[in-house]
Amino acid sequence: MSTLFNRMVIVGVGLIGGSLAAALRQRGAVGQIVGLGRRRETLEQARQLGLIDEIAESPEAVAGAELVLLAMPVAQMQDVLAQIAPHMDAGTVITDAGSTKSDVIEAARAQLGTGFVRFVPGHPIAGAEQNGPAAARADLFANRNVVLCPGAETDPQAVRKVAAMWEATGARVAQMDAARHDRIFAAVSHLPHLAAFALVDDLAGRAEAEDYFRYAASGFRDFTRIAGSSPEMWRDIALANREALLGELSAYMNKLGEIATALDKQDATALEEIFGRASKARRDWHGD
Amino acid sequence: MSTLFNRMVIVGVGLIGGSLAAALRQRGAVGQIVGLGRRRETLEQARQLGLIDEIAESPEAVAGAELVLLAMPVAQMQDVLAQIAPHMDAGTVITDAGSTKSDVIEAARAQLGTGFVRFVPGHPIAGAEQNGPAAARADLFANRNVVLCPGAETDPQAVRKVAAMWEATGARVAQMDAARHDRIFAAVSHLPHLAAFALVDDLAGRAEAEDYFRYAASGFRDFTRIAGSSPEMWRDIALANREALLGELSAYMNKLGEIATALDKQDATALEEIFGRASKARRDWHGD
Repeated sequence: MSTLFNRMVIVGVGLIGGSLAAALRQRGAVGQIVGLGRRRETLEQARQLGLIDEIAESPEAVAGAELVLLAMPVAQMQDVLAQIAPHMDAGTVITDAGSTKSDVIEAARAQLGTGFVRFVPGHPIAGAEQNGPAAARADLFANRNVVLCPGAETDPQAVRKVAAMWEATGARVAQMDAARHDRIFAAVSHLPHLAAFALVDDLAGRAEAEDYFRYAASGFRDFTRIAGSSPEMWRDIALANREALLGELSAYMNKLGEIATALDKQDATALEEIFGRASKARRDWHGD
Repeated sequence: MSTLFNRMVIVGVGLIGGSLAAALRQRGAVGQIVGLGRRRETLEQARQLGLIDEIAESPEAVAGAELVLLAMPVAQMQDVLAQIAPHMDAGTVITDAGSTKSDVIEAARAQLGTGFVRFVPGHPIAGAEQNGPAAARADLFANRNVVLCPGAETDPQAVRKVAAMWEATGARVAQMDAARHDRIFAAVSHLPHLAAFALVDDLAGRAEAEDYFRYAASGFRDFTRIAGSSPEMWRDIALANREALLGELSAYMNKLGEIATALDKQDATALEEIFGRASKARRDWHGD
C-alpha cells in the first residue's frame, strides 16, 4: 500500500508500540520509525528486532514527524506530553494507545495548546498478557477492535489518518465519545480485573491459603487468570478511570448483595433467575 | 489389578458416574456394573457406550451390591437415599460424588439408619464443563484430587474400599472433615461461580449490554467462562453450601469494599498492595 507517514515517532516501544511498528513496516505503510522512551536497553532491543530504525536521543526527535504515537503506561502521559509538546511541528498528528481516555484527553488538552486539535485519542483492544518489544507481533491487531475518541474540536483529517493507520494493521476501527469508552471498559475490563484481584487477595491472606489453593480447579484457574496481571499497570488504570470504575464496583457489589440475600432467604427461584440470565448471556456471547 | 467389587450400582450415569465406570472397567477393578437413574435414555446410552452392563428397573437393584455410588445432582440425594435404603444389604458400602458434603451427610444420616456407618462421603474434583455419559472418559480422574469426608462413626474398612476405588482411577485421595471441605470449596469453587454469574448478569441487564459485550476481550472471556455453567446445578450447590457460601460472599464483598475505598481516596499505595499480593499469589499458584 502507499506510505501513510514518512517519519513516525513511537514513544514506548513495547508490545503495543512495537507491534504497530511491525505491522506498518510489513505493509510498507511507513518510512522511518523513531523510538523514544525512558529505558535505553528496551529501545536498543527494539532496534535490534528491526521494529524501529532509530533511537531518539531526546524529545526534540518529534520535530518533523507526521505522526507521534504515545504507547507508554497511561500514568506517564502528562509528563511525556509536556516534554514533547514544545518540539512538535504545527501539522503533526498525535495519538495514543492508552486503556483509559478521559484522563489522557485532559492531559493532552493541558499540554498541547493549539496542537490539541490534532490529538486523536485511541485504544487498541489487544491482549497484554506479555510485554516488551520481544513480544511484538505484526498481526497483534488483526481483526481486533481499535476505539478512537475524537472530540468536537478534533481535526477530521487527523482522525482519518489515525484510522487509516490502524486499518493498515488489519484492525476494525470504531469511534465513540471518551466518557462512553471509559464506562464500557470499566465494566468489561477494569472491573473484572479488580474482581479477580479481590478474590485472590481475599484467599491469599488466610492462614489456610495453601490448602485452599491446592483444591482450586479449572473454574478458579480461568476466573483468576487476570489476577496475575501487572499490579502497577492496573493501579494506574484504576486511578485513571476512577469515576466509572467506582460506579461499576458499586453495581457489582449490589448484584452480589442481591445473590447473598436470595441465598440467605433460600430463594431458589431468584438464584436460578440470576444464574440463568448470566448463563444464557455468557453462552450467547461470541467472544470465545 | 484384582477385582474390588463384584457388583456395583451407580446412581446417575453421567460424566462422573460414567467416567468412574470406564476407569474401573479399564483396570479390571469391577465385575458387574448396574446403572440406576431417572432418565431411561441416559441409561440406554450408558449401556450402548459399554459403561454399564445392566439397567436397573427399580431401586431394589441395590440389593447384593458391594458398592453403591450416588453420582446424581446433590439436590436429589435425599430422595434417592430414601428409595434405595430399604433394599440395601447390611454390608453394602455407599459413597457419593457430590460437590457439597455436610448436606449429603445429613441426608444419609437421616435415611440410612444403621447403614450410615458404611456411608463414605466423597467429592472427586473433576471438571464438569460437559455432561452426560457421552462425555465420560476413563482418564477423567487421573492425577485429580478426590476428597473423602468420613466421620468419627464411619467404618474404616468402608473408607479403605472407597479410597482404593478412587486410587484405581489414578486419582489422589485426601481426607478432611466435611465442614472444612465445604469451607474450602465455597471459597475456591462456589464463590468464583457466583462472582462470575453476578458480573455477567449485572452487564446483561443493561440497555447497552450488546455494546458492552462487543468490546469485551480475553480478560472478560476467562473471568466469565464459568458463568456459562448450569444454573440449576449451581442453584442447588449454592443452597446446599449456604452457610459457608454466605460467609465467603461477605468476605469477598468486604475485600471489594476495601478496593473501592482505596480507589475513592485515590490511595495508590493501598491499591498496589492489594493487586500486588493477588498477582504474586496467582503467579505462584501451580494450577495452570
